[in-house]
Amino acid sequence: MTPHETATREERDTIGMLAVPAEAVFGIQTQRAVQLYPLAGQGRFSDYPALLTAMLHVKAAAAQVNVETGALDPAMGAALQAAAQDLLAAPRPEAFPVHAVHGGGGISFNMNLNEVLANLANRAGFGAAYGSYAPIHPNDHPNLNHSTADCLSTACHIAARHAFAGLATEVEGLAADLDRLGAEWAPLRKLARTCLQDAVDIGFAEYLGGVSATLRFHLDRARRDADALREVSMGGTIIGRAEDCDPAFFARILPVLNDHLAAAGLPADLVRTGNLFAASQAHDRLLALGATLDQLARMLIRFAKDLRLMASGPHGGLSELRLPAMQPGSSAIPGKVNPTLPEFMVQCGMIAVGHGAAMAMTQDHGEMDYNPWEAVVIVSLLDMIAVLDSGIATLRRNCVQGMRPDIARNQDNATSLLPSLIRLKQLKGYSYSAQVAKDAAGDLDLVRRKLAEAEGR
Amino acid sequence: MTPHETATREERDTIGMLAVPAEAVFGIQTQRAVQLYPLAGQGRFSDYPALLTAMLHVKAAAAQVNVETGALDPAMGAALQAAAQDLLAAPRPEAFPVHAVHGGGGISFNMNLNEVLANLANRAGFGAAYGSYAPIHPNDHPNLNHSTADCLSTACHIAARHAFAGLATEVEGLAADLDRLGAEWAPLRKLARTCLQDAVDIGFAEYLGGVSATLRFHLDRARRDADALREVSMGGTIIGRAEDCDPAFFARILPVLNDHLAAAGLPADLVRTGNLFAASQAHDRLLALGATLDQLARMLIRFAKDLRLMASGPHGGLSELRLPAMQPGSSAIPGKVNPTLPEFMVQCGMIAVGHGAAMAMTQDHGEMDYNPWEAVVIVSLLDMIAVLDSGIATLRRNCVQGMRPDIARNQDNATSLLPSLIRLKQLKGYSYSAQVAKDAAGDLDLVRRKLAEAEGR
Amino acid sequence: MTPHETATREERDTIGMLAVPAEAVFGIQTQRAVQLYPLAGQGRFSDYPALLTAMLHVKAAAAQVNVETGALDPAMGAALQAAAQDLLAAPRPEAFPVHAVHGGGGISFNMNLNEVLANLANRAGFGAAYGSYAPIHPNDHPNLNHSTADCLSTACHIAARHAFAGLATEVEGLAADLDRLGAEWAPLRKLARTCLQDAVDIGFAEYLGGVSATLRFHLDRARRDADALREVSMGGTIIGRAEDCDPAFFARILPVLNDHLAAAGLPADLVRTGNLFAASQAHDRLLALGATLDQLARMLIRFAKDLRLMASGPHGGLSELRLPAMQPGSSAIPGKVNPTLPEFMVQCGMIAVGHGAAMAMTQDHGEMDYNPWEAVVIVSLLDMIAVLDSGIATLRRNCVQGMRPDIARNQDNATSLLPSLIRLKQLKGYSYSAQVAKDAAGDLDLVRRKLAEAEGR
Amino acid sequence: MTPHETATREERDTIGMLAVPAEAVFGIQTQRAVQLYPLAGQGRFSDYPALLTAMLHVKAAAAQVNVETGALDPAMGAALQAAAQDLLAAPRPEAFPVHAVHGGGGISFNMNLNEVLANLANRAGFGAAYGSYAPIHPNDHPNLNHSTADCLSTACHIAARHAFAGLATEVEGLAADLDRLGAEWAPLRKLARTCLQDAVDIGFAEYLGGVSATLRFHLDRARRDADALREVSMGGTIIGRAEDCDPAFFARILPVLNDHLAAAGLPADLVRTGNLFAASQAHDRLLALGATLDQLARMLIRFAKDLRLMASGPHGGLSELRLPAMQPGSSAIPGKVNPTLPEFMVQCGMIAVGHGAAMAMTQDHGEMDYNPWEAVVIVSLLDMIAVLDSGIATLRRNCVQGMRPDIARNQDNATSLLPSLIRLKQLKGYSYSAQVAKDAAGDLDLVRRKLAEAEGR
Repeated sequence: MTPHETATREERDTIGMLAVPAEAVFGIQTQRAVQLYPLAGQGRFSDYPALLTAMLHVKAAAAQVNVETGALDPAMGAALQAAAQDLLAAPRPEAFPVHAVHGGGGISFNMNLNEVLANLANRAGFGAAYGSYAPIHPNDHPNLNHSTADCLSTACHIAARHAFAGLATEVEGLAADLDRLGAEWAPLRKLARTCLQDAVDIGFAEYLGGVSATLRFHLDRARRDADALREVSMGGTIIGRAEDCDPAFFARILPVLNDHLAAAGLPADLVRTGNLFAASQAHDRLLALGATLDQLARMLIRFAKDLRLMASGPHGGLSELRLPAMQPGSSAIPGKVNPTLPEFMVQCGMIAVGHGAAMAMTQDHGEMDYNPWEAVVIVSLLDMIAVLDSGIATLRRNCVQGMRPDIARNQDNATSLLPSLIRLKQLKGYSYSAQVAKDAAGDLDLVRRKLAEAEGR
Repeated sequence: MTPHETATREERDTIGMLAVPAEAVFGIQTQRAVQLYPLAGQGRFSDYPALLTAMLHVKAAAAQVNVETGALDPAMGAALQAAAQDLLAAPRPEAFPVHAVHGGGGISFNMNLNEVLANLANRAGFGAAYGSYAPIHPNDHPNLNHSTADCLSTACHIAARHAFAGLATEVEGLAADLDRLGAEWAPLRKLARTCLQDAVDIGFAEYLGGVSATLRFHLDRARRDADALREVSMGGTIIGRAEDCDPAFFARILPVLNDHLAAAGLPADLVRTGNLFAASQAHDRLLALGATLDQLARMLIRFAKDLRLMASGPHGGLSELRLPAMQPGSSAIPGKVNPTLPEFMVQCGMIAVGHGAAMAMTQDHGEMDYNPWEAVVIVSLLDMIAVLDSGIATLRRNCVQGMRPDIARNQDNATSLLPSLIRLKQLKGYSYSAQVAKDAAGDLDLVRRKLAEAEGR
Repeated sequence: MTPHETATREERDTIGMLAVPAEAVFGIQTQRAVQLYPLAGQGRFSDYPALLTAMLHVKAAAAQVNVETGALDPAMGAALQAAAQDLLAAPRPEAFPVHAVHGGGGISFNMNLNEVLANLANRAGFGAAYGSYAPIHPNDHPNLNHSTADCLSTACHIAARHAFAGLATEVEGLAADLDRLGAEWAPLRKLARTCLQDAVDIGFAEYLGGVSATLRFHLDRARRDADALREVSMGGTIIGRAEDCDPAFFARILPVLNDHLAAAGLPADLVRTGNLFAASQAHDRLLALGATLDQLARMLIRFAKDLRLMASGPHGGLSELRLPAMQPGSSAIPGKVNPTLPEFMVQCGMIAVGHGAAMAMTQDHGEMDYNPWEAVVIVSLLDMIAVLDSGIATLRRNCVQGMRPDIARNQDNATSLLPSLIRLKQLKGYSYSAQVAKDAAGDLDLVRRKLAEAEGR
Repeated sequence: MTPHETATREERDTIGMLAVPAEAVFGIQTQRAVQLYPLAGQGRFSDYPALLTAMLHVKAAAAQVNVETGALDPAMGAALQAAAQDLLAAPRPEAFPVHAVHGGGGISFNMNLNEVLANLANRAGFGAAYGSYAPIHPNDHPNLNHSTADCLSTACHIAARHAFAGLATEVEGLAADLDRLGAEWAPLRKLARTCLQDAVDIGFAEYLGGVSATLRFHLDRARRDADALREVSMGGTIIGRAEDCDPAFFARILPVLNDHLAAAGLPADLVRTGNLFAASQAHDRLLALGATLDQLARMLIRFAKDLRLMASGPHGGLSELRLPAMQPGSSAIPGKVNPTLPEFMVQCGMIAVGHGAAMAMTQDHGEMDYNPWEAVVIVSLLDMIAVLDSGIATLRRNCVQGMRPDIARNQDNATSLLPSLIRLKQLKGYSYSAQVAKDAAGDLDLVRRKLAEAEGR
């Protein structure tokens, strides 16, 4: 793994000695993880900046509290806080190479970060070399009064809320786009179908408004689920036991963490979860958001497929809607344009559902005191949010906002046989309408004339 | 299908003539559905009494409103209401034989019921024969001012809430059982593990409390989802158009339906949904409850597997917990007793997840104005609720309430090497604890003596 | 459970005493299971006759072998065989009331059957009362030299193969229907689309032939998976150990079982599986068939949705296909006919996928030596097969076999702009075609005239 | 997207003009795709080298055939082949930046490659500038006689087979590892359990052999599914129509492609699929492999969880197995070692199942003539294979190959009460064994002495 020509330094942990690249800002436990968990196209820790950022806030807050309570030497605390701030200001992806999904409940995330913070703080604060781990030791100081479980879980909640906020903006934006289009197209009627068979005429705005209402229904649920992530387990160090950390730390960590989040412009409303043992047994608050987004993904697949169907044609389709032509649609058929943006949305939705399926398995595979699959949970959730965000963002800007109805086609459809007869029935009663239907024998013009009469046109 | 020796009557619908069993209280459209949709072990309409009951309330309310507004002859309305009340009081399963999942968005549910109501009302109210459909006609009178879509959707919401209420009671009961056991067993410590490796000691009550907290988390979400089913689409007759029913009916139907529900002891708080078109396009409120119950099911699988694991043994397992012996566990090994109740819960959970997977597909396969898969949604949801209810009810009464900890084993585990060293570290610091660990070299008794000293015992 | 007015008899097992209905042909362990596993709409053992039948064959064969090897008194063996034959000839559903999914790896299936066989054989063969269990005892004689695990697993394989054979006939029949229609409609061209946009013309037969080829691809895979069920574990009594049964029994049971199957007209080609421990650890041969049928189900959903889409209209849809009108399509819109048969197929497919999802969970939740979730596997698999069989059978007979293309519409579509230009390009080259397209400026008649010229028409 | 300071060139396609980075080797359609499909952590085309390589083989073969048949100028053909060979020899990831999942059935894959080939060939072969597209035009020459659909589908089959071959090696290797360990540990007995309750003793080799047998069962199925990918659709240019390509091309393309594959050391046994229309309608051959790998993934989750459970302890667990200590297991508990390698395997399995779920959705969402979701299929399948490969490779080398049984613990377990009594029953009969059990009253030593007597030890 480390090519033979690279200079290395030797480090030791409880397992034994291992060579680490001489200038690596991470240390031996990171190096072990890199060697143990081969990447085959999957993401690294550094590919999840929302998570890394959240953990940095936790570490910075912990260092500050540990200094306040006298548990940590102020100079060491200051150096650790400065290291964390530097990483927040200037991310160093190469410092965080571990596989985003590794065994052991995320310990390699935590130790990777502890090692990097220790090395940076030792060098900048004390002039000590990488790998010296003095005065600051990865396990003792950046990890003081907490452990992987509570730090990672808290960071996952922060990261998921942050990522979700961006998605929520896009979902809200799509709903608003649809409402705006509905208002613009308001007078236009269209054919509505049941079971794909012609039924009645409705306003195009009514179709669009139905979609936006459903989007908002799912968005509201997702927001509630994201809000439930305010409850974090920081302080429930091992298995949810509060007793493994200093009571002063326990009392102060969340207020201080909120201050750090506020300074970074993030929601600063974290509270301690009602049952710390539950937070160790299961990641169900994250899974709840994932389950809600699975529904949003499926709903978006449905809507994107609607757009494709309404835009089908030009001759042999429904041709109710014209989508913007954004790219050539065939390598072989000149002039063909395909509904590629809705198709991208469909595919993003399918991928999101797949991430949701992976997440869901972590729940029934938990056991007793501790669910070790949190890496799958957070990676899948962040990937799910990202792919939905991508899909909606480009669907909005490159398709929905520029789509236009085919006015003539919709008018023709909306006054075709079945809608006209139903309209006639409303105006003149069932038997009149039935008689017209019988007399017309499929002659749509006749039915339309009778309807015009009935409407006093 | 109708054996040749059965006397039949001929009926006619828009498709043509068909023989119906002479004494059948249903009519031709039901008969068509029975012939079209072969049952192969799947349920009938009559196997879903919560749904049938809910539709009867809707039909009774509709008849009352139609009389009040003058749209329906009072005698006919009274006869229809009486027929509905009779069916509520004395269900007639043989009258509702259609496959619970049939094509066309549930129309056979609605027409089966319309035909039965018309026949019963005509016979009881007017002395008319089954199949006469005079004075009351299935399409004209029991279906007046509504259609399959709004009637069925509204009934699905009522039925799902009703079924869920029973499940909620069991979930709450299980959480309460766990809290009560926790209180009883409170002083007892147990070993807690991470990644199945010994870690620290916790109270048994803390494990149980964590589970009950998670149960309540999911229950709270499910209750919110069930509450969201208060919003119904009655009045959005076709595709969500309000204009297809009489404005007076539209205004009155929900208050009257609430009265009917109140009289039956059901929650009488239905309101009209904010967007009737959304309600036709998607059944996402029902699906949301299903998605939440999928999580509950997975959480219950986890907990039931915990019970099995903690009760594993007697020699080669964890043996922390003794489950009541409820049935012989082997046909070949005398005296073997298996954790069959937790296993039933696991299997119920798996089946529930399967129903959830079927439901979920209906969402991305919806299209445009109308989602025709509501039968899959409601049947899967009611089956899911029922199987979870069964599993929890028997798990509580035949396992959880009678289970007991193995006190000696838990005490021994809780004071084993790792928990003892960690406790010692808390009391006397890391280096003291490390020195004891080194001196002990695996001698647990020595470590325990040092811990007793440190605790002043 | 047993109403107080029912006469009962007392029975005893290793757990203790329990009252059983006096005339029940089952015994105490069945009674316990009935009380422990409440049915809430789920199936009973008796609802799975294919499984019950298969177990009866196993039990009859085991009794015969045990007599042959001298392990069982001939009179007792004869009585047990006669009891099994009687149950095969005249099923007694009331005798098999246990919940189809119960805890403990299917022991209640096995003991229910052992008790019924013992009681029937004791009464008919020895004049002994139900519940006497003498001379024949449920655990000792009908269960001799095997146990729940190997008997149930073997029976599941037999049952699944039998059920699948019926489904295979329907799938093959559907493929043949499509090929026959393709041959009938052979000259007719239709529009083919990519991404729902008009592309080229193809033969209607080619569309249908593509579908039938894919059906046969899945059918071939499913047949291989069903063939793999020939390998059974009979003889691997506990955990796969051969040593728990008499070597003579081990040697003879499969030949004799094959004789029994042959006599019943079932495939008589069972062989012992290569690794009996694997057969106890996992039910992966059954799951493999389920996974393949999940794909078939999804493929059928796709095809059934194609039918709906091609039949959409009459005015605002594709209108390429006319499906037989089998039932009125709306309770509110006279004359509306919906594609209810394809919709039933879609719904059956969704339900099948749900059963597949439940099955799939059993695999990752197995553990070590024994997978106790076989009841979920077999029940889900048989339900899956049944619902697919239902869906295909009625789709074929009530829809596919009677559907007809709209000839004019397909001809018009097939010669619309894009297909015509592509045809012209093939005949006269790209630049000629591009020039015609430019000159025509959307005038389809002109393009068609140029194409007719080019084709020498 | 293209920062303003980058020099650009203008290109034109049927949509209009667009600026492309001046030195980009790709062209306008790639640029459009990059702008349309934002990456948010998802992979690029270049992240799937197996697919890119396979497409290069197809393009090289097509160029060769087109020259042979006279359709393509030999100098242009040579330049295209050279460009393809150069890319095979020295991949240029920056040249293939499009989102791996884009709309339109993979057209951006194909056009990205066509543009790169045209630019490279024009520059190297004809001294023409990037963007000149003369003499070689992306649509006309590298795409001659085929289109996105057949080229991509064929390449997907090649890529999936290639990726699968690597996975198959690891699966076979894991099975061999288990067999080898089984042979090494052969005399050792262990406790076997049903429902996690002690049952009988088996050989440790028998447990391991059961797992390897199941691994091989799934591997055999997967190999058959991979073999079925030999059938490719090259030549079924649009919708499966053979008529859209030159008959000479149709006849020659597969032999020549096989030659190219052979030269690259890949299986050179491609044949044309039996029904080209089926290949356009569905990607079911790829999905079949995915469904089989979903089962493999679940089976591996089960096995990896077995390892964790058998290694649980040291005090409060099963402690049957000692896994190699590969990394510290806790940031807070010194000396703790967790089963992180099995946990990585579990997590890889969950992620694989997620990819499988995404893939599966593409099947039921196909429609009519063309399934446009192939990008989701191939990306998910390749990701699924990669993550399983990673998990198995590191599990084998860092865990399985170094794990050792705890001999004393297994011996103790294997001769504990239940196994001993069952062994005694086999040797001395049921009543002797029952009497010993009764006399012993839980005194295991007494039972063991009686067993030793019976065994003549």
